[in-house]
Amino acid sequence: MFRFPSVLLSRRLHRRELSSSTTSHPPSLPLSHPIYLIWGSNTGVGKTLVSAGIAAAFLLSSPTPSQFHYLKPLQTGFPSDSDSRFVFNKLRQLSLIRNPHIPLSASHRVINLSPAVTASNPLAGEEGVGPPPELLCKTLYAWEEAVSPHLAAEREGLVVKDSVVLETLGECLEDVAECGAGKERSEVLCVVETAGGVASPGPSGSLQCDLYRPFRIPAVLVGDGRLGGISGTISAYESLKLRGYDVVAVVFEDHGLLNEGPLMSYMRNKVPVLVLPPIPKDPLNDLMEWFESSHYIFSNLKEIMLSAYFERIKKLHDMPREARDIIWWPFTQHKLVPDGGVTVIDSRCGENFSIFKVQKTEVIAPQFDACASWWTQGPDAIMQTELAREMGYAAARFGHVMFPENVHEPALNCAELLLQGVGKGWASRTYFSDNGSTAIEIALKMAFRKFSVDHGLIVHCHEDTTNERSTELMVLALQRSYHGDTLGAMEAQAPSSYTGFLQQPWYTGRGLFLDPPSVFMHNSTWNVSIPEGYHLESLKGKSITFASPDEIFHKGRDKSELATVYSSYISKVLSGFRGSNNVGALIMEPVIQGAGGMHMVDPLFQRVLVNECRSRKIPVIFDEVFTGFWRLGVETAVELIHCVPDIACFGKLLTGGIIPLAVTLATNAVFDSFIGDSKLKALLHGHSYSAHAMGCAAAVKSIQWFKDPCSNPNITSEGRLLREV
Amino acid sequence: MFRFPSVLLSRRLHRRELSSSTTSHPPSLPLSHPIYLIWGSNTGVGKTLVSAGIAAAFLLSSPTPSQFHYLKPLQTGFPSDSDSRFVFNKLRQLSLIRNPHIPLSASHRVINLSPAVTASNPLAGEEGVGPPPELLCKTLYAWEEAVSPHLAAEREGLVVKDSVVLETLGECLEDVAECGAGKERSEVLCVVETAGGVASPGPSGSLQCDLYRPFRIPAVLVGDGRLGGISGTISAYESLKLRGYDVVAVVFEDHGLLNEGPLMSYMRNKVPVLVLPPIPKDPLNDLMEWFESSHYIFSNLKEIMLSAYFERIKKLHDMPREARDIIWWPFTQHKLVPDGGVTVIDSRCGENFSIFKVQKTEVIAPQFDACASWWTQGPDAIMQTELAREMGYAAARFGHVMFPENVHEPALNCAELLLQGVGKGWASRTYFSDNGSTAIEIALKMAFRKFSVDHGLIVHCHEDTTNERSTELMVLALQRSYHGDTLGAMEAQAPSSYTGFLQQPWYTGRGLFLDPPSVFMHNSTWNVSIPEGYHLESLKGKSITFASPDEIFHKGRDKSELATVYSSYISKVLSGFRGSNNVGALIMEPVIQGAGGMHMVDPLFQRVLVNECRSRKIPVIFDEVFTGFWRLGVETAVELIHCVPDIACFGKLLTGGIIPLAVTLATNAVFDSFIGDSKLKALLHGHSYSAHAMGCAAAVKSIQWFKDPCSNPNITSEGRLLREV
Repeated sequence: MFRFPSVLLSRRLHRRELSSSTTSHPPSLPLSHPIYLIWGSNTGVGKTLVSAGIAAAFLLSSPTPSQFHYLKPLQTGFPSDSDSRFVFNKLRQLSLIRNPHIPLSASHRVINLSPAVTASNPLAGEEGVGPPPELLCKTLYAWEEAVSPHLAAEREGLVVKDSVVLETLGECLEDVAECGAGKERSEVLCVVETAGGVASPGPSGSLQCDLYRPFRIPAVLVGDGRLGGISGTISAYESLKLRGYDVVAVVFEDHGLLNEGPLMSYMRNKVPVLVLPPIPKDPLNDLMEWFESSHYIFSNLKEIMLSAYFERIKKLHDMPREARDIIWWPFTQHKLVPDGGVTVIDSRCGENFSIFKVQKTEVIAPQFDACASWWTQGPDAIMQTELAREMGYAAARFGHVMFPENVHEPALNCAELLLQGVGKGWASRTYFSDNGSTAIEIALKMAFRKFSVDHGLIVHCHEDTTNERSTELMVLALQRSYHGDTLGAMEAQAPSSYTGFLQQPWYTGRGLFLDPPSVFMHNSTWNVSIPEGYHLESLKGKSITFASPDEIFHKGRDKSELATVYSSYISKVLSGFRGSNNVGALIMEPVIQGAGGMHMVDPLFQRVLVNECRSRKIPVIFDEVFTGFWRLGVETAVELIHCVPDIACFGKLLTGGIIPLAVTLATNAVFDSFIGDSKLKALLHGHSYSAHAMGCAAAVKSIQWFKDPCSNPNITSEGRLLREV
Repeated sequence: MFRFPSVLLSRRLHRRELSSSTTSHPPSLPLSHPIYLIWGSNTGVGKTLVSAGIAAAFLLSSPTPSQFHYLKPLQTGFPSDSDSRFVFNKLRQLSLIRNPHIPLSASHRVINLSPAVTASNPLAGEEGVGPPPELLCKTLYAWEEAVSPHLAAEREGLVVKDSVVLETLGECLEDVAECGAGKERSEVLCVVETAGGVASPGPSGSLQCDLYRPFRIPAVLVGDGRLGGISGTISAYESLKLRGYDVVAVVFEDHGLLNEGPLMSYMRNKVPVLVLPPIPKDPLNDLMEWFESSHYIFSNLKEIMLSAYFERIKKLHDMPREARDIIWWPFTQHKLVPDGGVTVIDSRCGENFSIFKVQKTEVIAPQFDACASWWTQGPDAIMQTELAREMGYAAARFGHVMFPENVHEPALNCAELLLQGVGKGWASRTYFSDNGSTAIEIALKMAFRKFSVDHGLIVHCHEDTTNERSTELMVLALQRSYHGDTLGAMEAQAPSSYTGFLQQPWYTGRGLFLDPPSVFMHNSTWNVSIPEGYHLESLKGKSITFASPDEIFHKGRDKSELATVYSSYISKVLSGFRGSNNVGALIMEPVIQGAGGMHMVDPLFQRVLVNECRSRKIPVIFDEVFTGFWRLGVETAVELIHCVPDIACFGKLLTGGIIPLAVTLATNAVFDSFIGDSKLKALLHGHSYSAHAMGCAAAVKSIQWFKDPCSNPNITSEGRLLREV
């Protein structure tokens, strides 16, 4: 299976009406020097003091000339509040105390001001002293009112889209890399201080933990030492982890409540917890003494930040070699993987991987996942977070529970959605398993049983439990088909280079494999190409072309002469086949044969084939593992080929790819062929003794979202909030 | 596969040193009337006012006589602070205003007092007015100092274990059901008010969200309307969901900051958000006006709570029927499922399901998961929460990413742990897939390739891609074996009632199946039972019995006469077998044959068999899907049978069962047999194009925990905190 172009495939027909711009210009994160996000578990917990303390520990006790970048993307209450000016001022004060003869070279800039600020305070802008700056403080966006950025933005007119915030921040981070060019890794440090708590809204209304997620900058969490602060700190930490952030340290002000006990216990083996001395509450206190008394803690914190950075860099560099040494990749001739050919995926965000690249500098850069991770990935960045929350909930609620004769909410909800959706109008039963290949093996067992009952084969077997086979059942299938990699699924596909002895020593190919007419596009026309063996005389040389896909999929073609040609071909091949009485199932991928080569099969042919099988009481299986759930722009290919199966298999996009789950749907007639007084008549070897709660929960969320991307809106849908508040 | 007794199986050899007592006496939750937990996103957000408001809405405007239970499990700052007394007093005041002539009948009790309270205030205890009470307020445990319960408990001496808190609360909830007997469902309402924030510690140090988890009582979250409160509310909500709680409403005090905008946006389609009028800050204000002005909101909240309760009850009753109608269970003859035979699993907590039962009253009751959900479940309640967090993090960080020529941290970390653990000393390569059956099919392909290369079969094939088979390869396997349900895995197992035409129409059994000697216990002695066909003359009638398992597993038995008997038997059978040259793999479950009947095979026989195969260059596969990861009390059965395979398969407990993942480990020699210049020589049909990040992350956590249950301690390990703070 190669990485085919996705020309024919609509990744998602339903575009989210309000697109999440976090994926529109995905930013890169330079890794040449350490960069950290400073988060607070609440507002007023001392994020800015922590930033200043880190700056002091970094700048004022280093023997080598070093550089510290302080970035404040979002500032409200400006200019009376300015965290970047605070850091700038405190550091100059501290530097005068520590090195009175060598003043710290520092700069301070405010890049974007709301009109309100500009009007009231035209001077707010740049301040600082001459180069070379060792401390560079920047505020990216400032509003006058001391409220949440989303309110300030709305009221003052400086509304900024998430993508613009990210772009501006991305440019500042590039500046950090450029300013630091030529400096050692440990000679430059950058902190980006967020506003409010981890889930406080940004200017568009998106939660900041969602807003900054595409960078996935490692985090320092400033916790809360007050009464109730244990809870707030733990919850904030969990919200960051639930967005995929790495947290390297938790630091908080001591309020004498011993909050460090429970916090250290909770964080043990996860994150170090540091306690700062109480901060003087007198507004006239210049905090110089406090900074001195907390110097040791900040030095410690700085070391933690540097060593976590070095560890990350080392890991990113080492991973390709380590992977080569111990991983056995599927579908890979390891000898042919070139040096440097192993990609480190640091994370994914929406439709992009974030990969490690060594270019001019090292970066974590977005890379479009062009084949949707083998046609399996679905969710955008917003939905990925929704699913992550759902996975946490389902795991916490259910863990693992077995399924036979049991029921749980995710399984039942999922089954209902499937029967109302992809199985609508024909399916009545839902059988869960782990992956598409297994779902196919289950489907084959179902079909063969139905066929055996309908054709009186079971009677002869007397519920036989020996190995004697009275009948060697076969499938009717198509050339270039693909149904999965386990032996049973492979036996149902036509011979190909992938079924040879080298690939599957036990493959025999238990089927009659028809060569189907295919559809291709040429000069803006859709053509049907008919293989040899079909009697085309009746068409009298008429060309088989169509102006649009609509024409190809039109049900009216049933009355065409081509339909008769197809029908006679199928009858001829079946009657000429020695084992035609033993053809116990039709199995095919409707419309598009995916892994076999991205061939589009003439839907008329598939419809005629289904009808021919139905008239012979051969059960029909649709393998929709690849085509299902909007991959072809419709929920199920049934909508395109206008006929229904008796059994159908789904996987891949079923859960948005986030977790393995597959399902085999069937009619009640198929189900009934397993009903009897003996357990041995049941579908015993059932492949999966659970309907994994997490898988079912993911499917429920994904299916709802695929059907209606607005069903799960949240604050991160940029712009949505502003319109509605 | 039946539910076999687990006599021989150690669920977990390594007991957690500090057992989580939350599972020791798992409590039941009565469902006869609605019960809710009232959580706060922080301390001081007005949980008690909300409780009182709900009580007023419920008691004082109902036309029918109704009953409200207010429970405060943990109260510090007592007696000056007493939330239950506050509710008691406010409701009496309110009742006098609304119905001046019919005073509310109410009672107030404090059940357990710390010695400090008793000393300083001997009168604190019971107060109230005559029956029949309509309002019953109870404090379960009270401490004097106004600090977190874990500190108060430590300082004042009333240290209470989690299990005791749960037991006391459970008794109070039973009282609610008893008091309410004879009343309509909607005539009784109970709220249980927590202390501090959602993750504030309880008296043992366990976080309250973990402490109360076994009940999984539905939640009302009191959010925070202050600056920063959006973030705190969202994070608290996420922490509750990450413990598997259902939240039915979020309610918070208006501070004029429009926090409801972002909160409603985030909660939309999840939870209703209600806003309370600002609470007067004057301590002399009796709040009567405030209660009146917020009456409408509380009525609304009460209705939400009642209707969520009724919806839950309806769902629990309907689920069995709905499941019967649309689910197709594995391993189930649906006709034989008795009426009432479908179990509704509401959740799981540690080793218990929480199931819906209709007894005297309806309850959610614990039920021990005696077969560990088909030998797949592992984690205890604490670890389940750890895994849930990890699942959320991995999903948020990675979503779904494909694997060939890529690497990501969870996959690499997992591979390393596997090679250092279950593969130690022999394995060098890690191949990920979705389930045990698939892992077996991969193992068979690996073994057959290695065999074909070693025996010169590949040369004849010229990298053949046609269907012509030069060699019909077979496995050497054991009677009563079981290796999975996909066709390839089934072909490798001996014929049984489960391989007949009814179960697997394509089964042929491509193996030579030996009848192995088995071990059983009788009269405190361990006996080896040898089937027919073995030449036992050399043993001269010696009985084959052992005093202990240690003797049976002893490597010294290699020199016994029995070893020679086994060796001759194997040679004889192999040489007598027509296709013996085509035996391309040995596959077996070491020590215990699980699904085939829980037989213990003589480990000496298995060791001799491995040696015989090795001398014939037949690759050896261990199917450790069932036995691996401490299921037999050791990390891998290799430690018991003292010989290593060339290939081994793991699944089930690999991830603690929480998510499907399997792995096939192999030696470098096996891996090298796939190396070549052509992609077709690779293991192409690879079964899984991803190493699911969530699966790998779960495996990493689980493996570390299995090896050292203290590696992931956290505050919920009861007692741990107190010793260490």
